[in-house]
Formats: sequence, C-alpha cells, structure tokens
Amino acid sequence: MASGLVVAVVGVTGAVGQTTLKILEERKFPVRELRAFASARSVGKTVTFKGDAVRVEQVGPEAFKGVEIAFFSAGSSQSKEYAPQAVRAGAVVVDKSNAFRMDPEVPLVVPEVNPHAVRGHRGILACPNCTTIVTVMPLKPLHEAGRLRRVVATSYQAVSGAGVNGVEELRSQTLAWARGEAITPRFFPHQIAFNVVPHVDKFADNGYTGEELKLVNEVRKILELPGLPISPTTVRVPVFTAHSVAVNAETEVKVSRARAREAFAGFPGLKLWDEPGENRYPMPVVVEGQDDCYVGRIREDLSLSNGLNFWVVGDQLRKGAALNGIQIAELLIR
Amino acid sequence: MASGLVVAVVGVTGAVGQTTLKILEERKFPVRELRAFASARSVGKTVTFKGDAVRVEQVGPEAFKGVEIAFFSAGSSQSKEYAPQAVRAGAVVVDKSNAFRMDPEVPLVVPEVNPHAVRGHRGILACPNCTTIVTVMPLKPLHEAGRLRRVVATSYQAVSGAGVNGVEELRSQTLAWARGEAITPRFFPHQIAFNVVPHVDKFADNGYTGEELKLVNEVRKILELPGLPISPTTVRVPVFTAHSVAVNAETEVKVSRARAREAFAGFPGLKLWDEPGENRYPMPVVVEGQDDCYVGRIREDLSLSNGLNFWVVGDQLRKGAALNGIQIAELLIR
Repeated sequence: MASGLVVAVVGVTGAVGQTTLKILEERKFPVRELRAFASARSVGKTVTFKGDAVRVEQVGPEAFKGVEIAFFSAGSSQSKEYAPQAVRAGAVVVDKSNAFRMDPEVPLVVPEVNPHAVRGHRGILACPNCTTIVTVMPLKPLHEAGRLRRVVATSYQAVSGAGVNGVEELRSQTLAWARGEAITPRFFPHQIAFNVVPHVDKFADNGYTGEELKLVNEVRKILELPGLPISPTTVRVPVFTAHSVAVNAETEVKVSRARAREAFAGFPGLKLWDEPGENRYPMPVVVEGQDDCYVGRIREDLSLSNGLNFWVVGDQLRKGAALNGIQIAELLIR
Repeated sequence: MASGLVVAVVGVTGAVGQTTLKILEERKFPVRELRAFASARSVGKTVTFKGDAVRVEQVGPEAFKGVEIAFFSAGSSQSKEYAPQAVRAGAVVVDKSNAFRMDPEVPLVVPEVNPHAVRGHRGILACPNCTTIVTVMPLKPLHEAGRLRRVVATSYQAVSGAGVNGVEELRSQTLAWARGEAITPRFFPHQIAFNVVPHVDKFADNGYTGEELKLVNEVRKILELPGLPISPTTVRVPVFTAHSVAVNAETEVKVSRARAREAFAGFPGLKLWDEPGENRYPMPVVVEGQDDCYVGRIREDLSLSNGLNFWVVGDQLRKGAALNGIQIAELLIR
C-alpha cells in the first residue's frame, strides 16, 4: 500500500475525468502509476497529472492489465463493455455511469450516507447520479432525525452535468447573444442561455424523464427505503457548475428548524449555509469548486405539521461525481 | 363609452408600465385620452402611445382630475399614497403593487379565475403578484376537477419580475463575463448571471421570503380557499422574461393525466403544451411575449395516489402583470 496503486481513469478527457485527476492530486490518493483512457479520437493526446504529461490510451480488451482501481466516467455503454473486462483483469471498478447502479449485486454508494454498502462488492461499485448525491446528502440526517415519509424534489441543474458539450453550448450561445447574433441549439434540445428547460435525459411513457426516475430509484436504494414516496422534477438551468435542489420533505416525527440545522451541521460533507438575514444561502457561485454540499433556506413547512423545506447545492462534478467516486475508493483501501 | 375613457398609467416608464401601453394598444382598449405618470426624475420624458408622443407628468394630489381608470405599477409606497387620491378624484384604480392585495375590502382578481370578485369594489382593485397569477391559472381548473388538498410550488423567476433594473443587471453581468471581466452585483444581492438565487423579496422571521408568503396568501384569497395548505419556494434565475413554476398538487379526488390535460386545455388563458415525445413543454423562450400561460410536463405523482405534477410558464410582464390589469378593467367596462 505504501508504494501506491495503479489507477486508471476511463473517460479522462471528459468533465468528470478531468475533475477526477484534480481530486486524486488534491487528496493525495496513493497513485503509483496513472493510466489515462479515452475513446479512439483522444488517443495521442496527453493529460496532466502531478505535473507530468500522461499519454491517453485507447480502452480495449487488454488495456486493464495491472490496473488495481479504475474510475469509469465514459458513459453507460463504455462501462457495460469495459468494466467487466477491467474486473476480469483484476481491477476494482468505481463506475460513474448509469450502467450498474440498480443492479442488486452492485453497491450504490455515497460514503457519508451508506459506507457499509461497499462490503461484499464483486468488483464493481456504482456512484449515483449527480442530482441523487446532492439530494440524498441532507436527506440522510433528516431521516435519522425524523424518519422520512415523503419527498418532493425539484432541481436546478448546471450544464456541466451534461459534460463538456453542455458547457460549450451555454458558452457559445451566451457569446452569440453578446454579439447580437441568433442562438442555435446544437447539443441540448432547446436554447439553454437565458432559458430553463424542464427536460434532462429521455422521457419515459409515464411522462417522467430518466433523470427524474434515477433520482427516485437511487435515493431509495442508497437510503435502503425501497418504498419511500418521492416526487421528482428535474430542470436544466443556465448555470455552468453546481446543481441546486429545492426539497420538501415530510417526516414521521416533526423536525423543527433548529433541530434540522443541528442535524445538517453535524453531518460530514454537508455545510450549513443558512443565515438569510445576512443574505447567506447556498448558490452555485458559492459552491462551485467546493467539496461539501451546502444546505440552507431551512423552513418549517407552512402546509404540513411534519414538513420541512430546504435548499441544497452541490458541485456536481466534485461531490456529485469525481469526489464521490474517489471517496468510495478511499473506503476500499482504508 | 363609445368615445372611450381617460386612462392613466402610473409608473409608465417601468417594465410593467411600458407593457401596459403596448397591451392597451393591442387590445384596442377604449382610450380617449392617455395620461402618463411617473416619478419626478422622469418628468419631461415622453412615452409613445398609438404612435403619439405623450408627455410624462409627475403624480401628485391634483394629478388625477378627470381620470376614469388608472393602472398603477409604481410600487407599494406610491400606490398607498396616490391610489386613494385617484379614487377621490373619481377614478377606478387597478393596482399592480402589493399595497392593497390582502385588504379584505379590495378584490384580488385574475379574470379567468374569479371574475365575480370585481363586484362591489370600492374604487381599488388589486392585481396579484406575478408568480401568484402564473401558479393560480392551472390550479383553478385542477381544483374544479379534483378539489385541491395541498400544493407545493417551486419557482424559476425571470429578472424582469424585478423591473428594468433586474434586466439591466443580467444584461450587464453577462456582457462583463463575455468580455472576460469580473462580475459585480449592484441590484440583486448576489450575481445573477450563470447563478440561481433562492431569494426574492425580503425574509420574514420564519425563514420564508415575502414572495413566498405572497404566493400562499394570494392563491388562497383568489381561490377562496383560506385554509389551503401551500408550501412555496421562490428562486430567481438568469432568464429575462417569463416565470416558470414546478407544481406538485394533491387533490381530494384523483385527477388522471388525461383528465388534467383536458381540464387545462379547456381553461381560458391556459395553453396545453405537453408533448414530451416531441420535446414540447413550456419554457421561457417559448412563452415570452405570449398572453397565455403554457402548461406541460403533466405527470401523475409517483408518491401519492391523488397527486399531480405539472410545469407552468407565463410571461410575468403580460399575464403576470399588465395584461391581467387590463383584463380587470375590461371586466369593469363590460
């Protein structure tokens, strides 16, 4: 262990891959050798890790020989194809995609919430969707304080949740506006600059999006509350980084504002940011680049005796993705 | 009547005042003479109405002589001071401010929802807050279809809801970003470009904002359901015009998706825009400049047997303010 591990990052040129490299450095994750993987069109490029240029390799059947831990953030189809190969080559895979999250044999882990779930993994551990992670972080201490009965979650999601193409789309549309030019949607289904789009991921027959159904299913699995009633609405907003979620939660036992503040403040990875009189509440511009999820706007529900409203914001590239993956790996090597 | 009315617009240089002039023209409101009022610093300017330049006058004790209908959109303190003077001078006042909305002697009117409320007015009629109007439009037909039991409303509010200063702030911050310059908040408490700010209006002791409490109190008054449980969260987003609201509603009687679509489609002033398979759902860029409120993303609640989720967007300068005021006046002269 002292000499470190051979670590692979698959999807290294993407938004989450790049953030993974940064956080591996920041947290001094014990990397003996870094292997950088991406699709064919990135081969030949280099990425920087601890000041060194690392050549990007193509993923493939023989690629994972010698790899001990592999962080996958290259999308579901890549994970489905290559994660089992990495496991057969002897690696443990921490997968950021949707490929294995709901597989009953794959742990779905937010280390502050359900660290025990890593036990008994069979080579693959899944990292939840970004919106799930940001939402479940405050739900866990609230559940411990009052037992959750129902949750209504409404999101405000940053474009980088859709990757570098999302960032480029907001950037180029905004610059077009600044030049007085027409805006043409290319990546998102509609204009995202100066607009809000209630459509993240594909629509299911019941009218919900994949993003909304992921939120329901993943929160239930992580909290081990398979019947928890959750009503989701997910919306893309013209913000570069950090997802915000407005949460209305009903509990079995009343949780006062004071008790909720205490419970949130005492939970690792959550930061209480709730001084409305000083205009202090969580916002993307405050939380971007931070590891903690910030929670504020804590209000007892006006419409229910056992209800609570709050507002949580998390950097979805960090806690919502790369950081959470690395924290899972840290649990494994501890 | 045939020769028209003497109409005053107070706050004529503001975002709502300008939209009021435009809609008075569009709807051929019977204006015999237009009087344009604003604060001292705008006196001497002119505004354009039906192609003519109209000189801006200062409001004052003698200003309303001869005025028959006065549209006020100059803010609460102006309304409190001058609306009673206008009434004493013989005018009927349609007030867009917060000054009189909760006065039990003042009707609070959304013409499609509670037209009967205009009867028995004593000279002043109040127009609800913009977010209230957009939210209450679909709630009315849903209440008729299934009797409302509880509402959770979460907003995405455009900067022009805060007037021309809000528009200028988003514009100038975005242009600064495009030039690579730092962004300095001047009007809103925090950066609004590429950010979302869960703070509209002042905070009350219970942690709710004035905007959130207005939504609760005004929806109850308009629907004549004084005890209706409503849980509000209001948020400013970097959109120029049109407010969006995610609504989760619980009803006494189950309202299916099909029944809700029918109820919304049949309600005047609402437009059903709900074909997710064709990427058709309401958004600010679709609704800006439209009179109707657009409703879509209609989904039966996954967490309640009698719950419904939907998403409504309205141009808050038109239906959320100027248009609604003019519709109130049209009810009066009908």
